[in-house]
Amino acid sequence: MASALRVLGIDPGLTRCGVGVVDVARDRSASLVHVGVVRSATDLPIEQRLATIAAGIRAVLRSHNPDVVAVERVFAQQNRNTVMGTAQASGIALLVAAEYGLPAATHTPSEVKAAITGYGAADKLQVQTMVARVLRLDALPQPADAADALALALCHAWRQGPGNAAGPDATASLTPAQRAWADAERAAARR
Amino acid sequence: MASALRVLGIDPGLTRCGVGVVDVARDRSASLVHVGVVRSATDLPIEQRLATIAAGIRAVLRSHNPDVVAVERVFAQQNRNTVMGTAQASGIALLVAAEYGLPAATHTPSEVKAAITGYGAADKLQVQTMVARVLRLDALPQPADAADALALALCHAWRQGPGNAAGPDATASLTPAQRAWADAERAAARR
Repeated sequence: MASALRVLGIDPGLTRCGVGVVDVARDRSASLVHVGVVRSATDLPIEQRLATIAAGIRAVLRSHNPDVVAVERVFAQQNRNTVMGTAQASGIALLVAAEYGLPAATHTPSEVKAAITGYGAADKLQVQTMVARVLRLDALPQPADAADALALALCHAWRQGPGNAAGPDATASLTPAQRAWADAERAAARR
Repeated sequence: MASALRVLGIDPGLTRCGVGVVDVARDRSASLVHVGVVRSATDLPIEQRLATIAAGIRAVLRSHNPDVVAVERVFAQQNRNTVMGTAQASGIALLVAAEYGLPAATHTPSEVKAAITGYGAADKLQVQTMVARVLRLDALPQPADAADALALALCHAWRQGPGNAAGPDATASLTPAQRAWADAERAAARR
């Protein structure tokens, strides 16, 4: 896949940080390169937890050399107990991308769900099922936490790639979910 | 001040990140080493803003070689518009400390105010005035944003230093504010 875009998706977290790397071709077909979770022990001091997350992400960058990094956008409204740690981990992910010389982007959970399933309020199983189908996996992506990172990477490629600028005629090769998303994007642009 | 503890205080922010370095002696007297603000341009992509903040903090670490880093703790309840950027910047500050081999600590704004003024709900001017007095500055610390970083550094040294373990007799050399804080700490410990 010489002309593919290689995207590292990161689902930020302090205890479990999902990382997924996919190659996405110009025709929007995609293949799995790597999936995993970077963990940090809950009994470590916060600064060492963040350093562990940074080291884990840097290792993925070195091993798989993506073209771009996509990070899930964190909102203050999310789960109060962990949101600050999640926000800190997202900052680490963005910093590590910049220091590796890569552009980074953030996408909201509902953008990701809409891009993958055509439905912004899809549940976890629907997202995992679509990710497995798109990547032609025999089973749902494992570990389950990392499926979100793969979904994020696919979302980024589909929204930022050549397909993003496509007109109505260019949607013929899209999956139904992708077409629904393209339609929704055009509808939003007309508003 | 050979046996002084050198503390870097960081008031995290994406647009303005206050940094203040103080030396605090065993008798809790303190002197100013450095004060400043690390800025990042609001029109830069988020990952480059975070990299700018990281580079600025690393420069302070290299120039002033503190023993410990104290970072203001960020809460989800704070100003909604900027809290995620502030949390990301705090994660960067903690990461940079760890990667420099330093321990880090976080303190809440009310802990800082109580440590400096004896009153957890003190206003900015009261904190700045006490910081100027403690550090024997001719004017309020400039830039004003960075006064919080100095207050944080002083708070950390006073709470973590030898004075922290002091019994009732050891409070004789404290300022009224420090004594009020020590009293409050003992009262809390008895509860």
